[in-house]
Amino acid sequence: MTNTLFYSPGACSLGIHIILEEIGKPYELSLVNLKGGAQHQPEYMAVNPKSKVPALKREDGTLLTEYPAIATWLAKSNPEAGLLPTDLEGETRAAEAMAYFTGTIHPYGFTRQYRPGNFTPNEADIPKVVETGKAAADKYFTLVDGQWLGGDWVLPSGYSVADTALFFVEYWGGKRSGLTLPSKLAAHMERMMARPAVRRMMEQEGLSA
Amino acid sequence: MTNTLFYSPGACSLGIHIILEEIGKPYELSLVNLKGGAQHQPEYMAVNPKSKVPALKREDGTLLTEYPAIATWLAKSNPEAGLLPTDLEGETRAAEAMAYFTGTIHPYGFTRQYRPGNFTPNEADIPKVVETGKAAADKYFTLVDGQWLGGDWVLPSGYSVADTALFFVEYWGGKRSGLTLPSKLAAHMERMMARPAVRRMMEQEGLSA
Repeated sequence: MTNTLFYSPGACSLGIHIILEEIGKPYELSLVNLKGGAQHQPEYMAVNPKSKVPALKREDGTLLTEYPAIATWLAKSNPEAGLLPTDLEGETRAAEAMAYFTGTIHPYGFTRQYRPGNFTPNEADIPKVVETGKAAADKYFTLVDGQWLGGDWVLPSGYSVADTALFFVEYWGGKRSGLTLPSKLAAHMERMMARPAVRRMMEQEGLSA
Repeated sequence: MTNTLFYSPGACSLGIHIILEEIGKPYELSLVNLKGGAQHQPEYMAVNPKSKVPALKREDGTLLTEYPAIATWLAKSNPEAGLLPTDLEGETRAAEAMAYFTGTIHPYGFTRQYRPGNFTPNEADIPKVVETGKAAADKYFTLVDGQWLGGDWVLPSGYSVADTALFFVEYWGGKRSGLTLPSKLAAHMERMMARPAVRRMMEQEGLSA
């Protein structure tokens, strides 16, 4: 048996998809059509009652959910891939970065834009919520850009799983929402898209560069 | 120098406050009055530009943010306190639990209730948003209760930092929002409130049992 990633094309699961490609071992993909509401159907709720992707069914049959937990587990159980610093400080900064990208920028910047119904009970207010989401994403990107430590990647020690979490929000912002990314993030997104693992993910999910 | 926790009484920072009390080493508290908007004032933004608590200024002067990162760092840099499993699977399940409590139950269950203006641009819709938040919190609590593994604490291996993150949402739900917690979570909250470290936190933050 191999690991199976439950994903939806272009959803934040794309970052975990990148990690699986970076590791390079066999894995399977299982499509959950978020736009069609498959995450709320009994079939998927029997797999993941949280009705979210990403979720990883592991080789031993157990399910693991939540982006930072899946990313960290994959990195630590495949140490030869070098996707996470092995010192406490590096690991801590990776956790801090992933929590912010997945727990703040994703919901308050992009869920507001892509699922505005979560941020207003009123159809008429949807355009306003979408604008608030764009403004919030801009503000968060500016903050990350301003605290950038100067290297090519999120952590000064080099490429890590934290880059995959930054990439999915950058991709949403730059390619889907039409935001202008601050210069360091724009360069980071390009650097990510030059990686073979990222290209393979994009091809498999049908995403345009 | 000691660690300094930036907190607001009764905010999610209360969980990190518990961890510092469990560890039992000297630390300092620095009040950030969220209700008064202190998190958006220049003084605090110079400390933490994310305008959030908890934030931990560490002994070396560096700032650490994001609940799961702070909790995990405190547990790992104080291993004698036994607040985190040392095996990969236990650590992974702790990360998964904390991500859900802090990244889903907190924003979609409770920010909706306590800062409904984040979830509607329209004053008139605020009561509806508050009700949606209560219903969401109920749903999340039922899910956590249903997946409970049967022991006294979140992880079958015993008490950990994951319990502090569950506690803050339980406390909000049971003591502040007037929700009826499912039986296993109600028992967990009582078990938490019997711990001397939790009692000290509550006394210091002026919270009622």
